[in-house]
Amino acid sequence: MDAYTDSLERLISALGKLPGIGRRSAERIAFYLLDTDRDEADALAQAVHDVKTKVGHCTQCGGLAEGETCALCANPRRDRSRLCVVEKPKDVLRIEATGGYSGLYHVLGGLISPADGTGPETLDLARLRRRVDEGEVEEVVLALSPTADGDGTTLCVAEHLKGAGVRVTRLARGLPTGASLEYANPGMLADALRDRQDLGS
Amino acid sequence: MDAYTDSLERLISALGKLPGIGRRSAERIAFYLLDTDRDEADALAQAVHDVKTKVGHCTQCGGLAEGETCALCANPRRDRSRLCVVEKPKDVLRIEATGGYSGLYHVLGGLISPADGTGPETLDLARLRRRVDEGEVEEVVLALSPTADGDGTTLCVAEHLKGAGVRVTRLARGLPTGASLEYANPGMLADALRDRQDLGS
Repeated sequence: MDAYTDSLERLISALGKLPGIGRRSAERIAFYLLDTDRDEADALAQAVHDVKTKVGHCTQCGGLAEGETCALCANPRRDRSRLCVVEKPKDVLRIEATGGYSGLYHVLGGLISPADGTGPETLDLARLRRRVDEGEVEEVVLALSPTADGDGTTLCVAEHLKGAGVRVTRLARGLPTGASLEYANPGMLADALRDRQDLGS
Repeated sequence: MDAYTDSLERLISALGKLPGIGRRSAERIAFYLLDTDRDEADALAQAVHDVKTKVGHCTQCGGLAEGETCALCANPRRDRSRLCVVEKPKDVLRIEATGGYSGLYHVLGGLISPADGTGPETLDLARLRRRVDEGEVEEVVLALSPTADGDGTTLCVAEHLKGAGVRVTRLARGLPTGASLEYANPGMLADALRDRQDLGS
């Protein structure tokens, strides 16, 4: 369209590929960037570039890192006796955001999914086993999604850690805090009933 | 936060400054960019950079241009006898999107706003008058927002074009197409009544 310049059209189309950004939002952001001061726009362009060039995977946990080791694995104040197994790097952020965990992480990088033909061999469970066998770990917390693939992977990882001499746990199941009982589905309610908690007698 | 790397945190914070993008969306987009292929991310970074370096203003109409003249002013098939006066470059896109206008544009770059202390001198109306006096123009269509500032500016521009020997018009007022009469405000309805259209007799 004549009314757009080439650069503007390219920016709108690049923005429109981002998740949750439609054509209208992309136009709005493009015009915002056109009007904003140069430093802010440069910071954004540089940040996009840096994320693709500098961010890699931690050689220890498989999470995100700039350099060899991520800040969590390098932090001497983290509790090395606990290892939380998650599917992807973003899950680390969600668990960190609770403020309720001070151990280390292990990022699997995926789940076993029979429907997609992804077997246990894709997850490099031997690497996890080596970390556990190094001796400091006392408990492995499996924090995978409560889905068919997540539960399957949880069972498979637990099986793989048999004989390692560590406690293996998984996240609790129950009603999601803040939700109404009315909207709980039967599976959720069945889990909540089975794992009901004592309030004393 | 330890769980983010520096580059990722910088990207999330740069994205979070964009209009309509909150912290959660910024995180989602940042992780998308982290996972997407390098070319797509580079295209975005480059596009942001280009928009700030290459896009300037057309020396003729004041709209967006890369180089001296915008594609609309340079297009020999545009009708040079009509000039549509708009507030900002984005308005050109909106009018082009209707497909109902084939003339040229003149971008004022703002509106007169007594409340903000912006007077007629900020709009360089002499430049508009020079374009009109060059002789090709037969009609000036004032396409400013139907607000107090827009209407004030419309009157002032019309006043400024007195004696130039051109027809001066403004966009029609009435009910917005697709809206319900029930939600029309009194001013809208009054305009629609006054400018009612003949359907024949």
